[in-house]
Amino acid sequence: MITIPVELSERSYDIQIEAGALERSGVALASLGDVSRVLLVTDENVDALYTETVAAALVDRGLDLDVVVIPAGEESKSIEMANSLWERFLEVGADRKSVAVALGGGVVGDLTGFVAATYVRGIRFFQIPTTLLAQVDSSVGGKTAVDLPGGKNMVGAFWQPGGVLIDPNVLATLPADQYRAGLGEVVKYGASLDADFFGFLERNVEKIAARDPETLGAVVAKCCEIKAQVVSEDEFETTGRRALLNYGHTFGHALESALGYGTLLHGDGVSIGSLAAARLAKRLGENGDARFSAIDGAWVARQTELLERLGLPTSLEVVGRRIGDAPETSIERLVDLMRTDKKAEFGKLSFVLPTGLGECVRLRDVSPEDAAAALAE
Amino acid sequence: MITIPVELSERSYDIQIEAGALERSGVALASLGDVSRVLLVTDENVDALYTETVAAALVDRGLDLDVVVIPAGEESKSIEMANSLWERFLEVGADRKSVAVALGGGVVGDLTGFVAATYVRGIRFFQIPTTLLAQVDSSVGGKTAVDLPGGKNMVGAFWQPGGVLIDPNVLATLPADQYRAGLGEVVKYGASLDADFFGFLERNVEKIAARDPETLGAVVAKCCEIKAQVVSEDEFETTGRRALLNYGHTFGHALESALGYGTLLHGDGVSIGSLAAARLAKRLGENGDARFSAIDGAWVARQTELLERLGLPTSLEVVGRRIGDAPETSIERLVDLMRTDKKAEFGKLSFVLPTGLGECVRLRDVSPEDAAAALAE
Repeated sequence: MITIPVELSERSYDIQIEAGALERSGVALASLGDVSRVLLVTDENVDALYTETVAAALVDRGLDLDVVVIPAGEESKSIEMANSLWERFLEVGADRKSVAVALGGGVVGDLTGFVAATYVRGIRFFQIPTTLLAQVDSSVGGKTAVDLPGGKNMVGAFWQPGGVLIDPNVLATLPADQYRAGLGEVVKYGASLDADFFGFLERNVEKIAARDPETLGAVVAKCCEIKAQVVSEDEFETTGRRALLNYGHTFGHALESALGYGTLLHGDGVSIGSLAAARLAKRLGENGDARFSAIDGAWVARQTELLERLGLPTSLEVVGRRIGDAPETSIERLVDLMRTDKKAEFGKLSFVLPTGLGECVRLRDVSPEDAAAALAE
Repeated sequence: MITIPVELSERSYDIQIEAGALERSGVALASLGDVSRVLLVTDENVDALYTETVAAALVDRGLDLDVVVIPAGEESKSIEMANSLWERFLEVGADRKSVAVALGGGVVGDLTGFVAATYVRGIRFFQIPTTLLAQVDSSVGGKTAVDLPGGKNMVGAFWQPGGVLIDPNVLATLPADQYRAGLGEVVKYGASLDADFFGFLERNVEKIAARDPETLGAVVAKCCEIKAQVVSEDEFETTGRRALLNYGHTFGHALESALGYGTLLHGDGVSIGSLAAARLAKRLGENGDARFSAIDGAWVARQTELLERLGLPTSLEVVGRRIGDAPETSIERLVDLMRTDKKAEFGKLSFVLPTGLGECVRLRDVSPEDAAAALAE
């Protein structure tokens, strides 16, 4: 078992990664201590595959269990669904000693975490992520949220889990598109924060494509380690350090939002967005910003190549669309959406841009013209 | 100006109490620094009286302002209203540098605080309480919440304001029933936590009834001081210390909930509930629990007398009802409601009970029979 500590003073916890970990979930939950009942939230897809294993492990440790199954997909990350969970928690008598467990991907984790953060002003929360995206990103760091019709993740809370249990074996059943999209976040870590890891990914494309368990364990552990380090340095996103995890995200969120949540997978958006960010950095470098002088055509091509070898999209063609093919995907609208991104301040455009391999900076006042040009390229 | 510091390490802030403070609200808000815009939330009643003064003070300091007016009353403390505020904040372009200001009573404060705690995972929050209840209780301590149909304050967050500005002058326009209900919380502080203050209230009933500004300033300051001390010792209600602020609240919440939110004023519920709690303590003392041996008929009578002299209710007659006059107010249902109180754990009944004047303890496993008997008396 690989254990990665997330150091957050009194909110510290461990990420445990182990093949077959699902069967140990009862032990992990019981070790939290003083648990009145477990509220297990999962989606229809995951429910069919893994609820039975987890439920058996929990019941085996004498834990009282309620299972709530929500529809799969981004549409469930809504105020309405949060409301139905709050009411369900109340109905089954959840109290301050209860623990909410998210068994699923990012939607289940973000939603369940937000409900845990706010039910009776906060109950304990535990994550068992079952998608690659959730294992390497959304389950780590305590960000919880639901969407508003006008913006993704606009309502949420920082709420750290009491623990995260990751079973790489479950990735074997992940649909191909979800697996691929998760790799979008994986490449992000390498490209923007860890050059060695980027090289590791380049050397292991075939094993990753084959979902080799040992390679996947190492990939997930490295991503968790990078993210845990950044989060422990800037838990509440106040110093700018944590913002560096958002390479590709300003463009990516705008694309996701423009197409309507759920059309473009998040990791696909990050993949396309990170290339737009690389082009923006290249453009700024060419226009004389010395910080981006290292970002040239070769740099962009190297990133593009790794993304393509891993099957990741480099344009909206993945969903049969193109930028500007309809009013809602016009460059003007995309730039407008980026202005209302949570990372924006005073309506200014904010981006994380590469300065070299495994290095990046945050720019908080990019001109709409430059952003538009990077999208149009 | 009286300044009461609330010591909460990096979340510390000041409560400032001063006649005419509303006119200083622009200075207070501007001093927070780096404010992109102010989102002022108030209700219809307060809007008609005080928005103009506060808005002028804010604009005078160069602050950008959006005003949101919600319907007055507990019905506004709902997920639906929170949702409309989240969407409104997004619509006007609120960002992480924006500050939400609650101008109003407990409903406005609790709701606005919850929305501030969760909009883009938390923006700054500032309180300008305009009811006695909000000035002495709900604006202090960082508890924010909305109600579910099945329970009061079931969804919320701990979210400390950046500051609280209290203008005792506004109490002059408070409707008589709201003023009286606020005194229910005031008496609570004396009876359960500060014997000297209880004596001060007994000696100043006439001045309090006349809303003498100087006396009111002293009353509000003392209540804030007591509460700030308790909160700084137990911000997240984990040690049991903060729970001691809930004298009268288990019974009170059950009565409020049984009648439907908004029928019984919260402070009236606390008044009636604190007498039920006193009777419960007396009963436990008579049944041999030595902790409550000091709570005799004379003790209950002394508390009853002060409440009555201040015009506070001692029974549901204040809303033309009696316990047991309908299925929804049956003792059985009230006890059931107390089991699902947030303070309950594992379905057990939890109460704060007096052990002497200005002293109390929390009991976490009271029998339903004893609770029922105290209600029936």
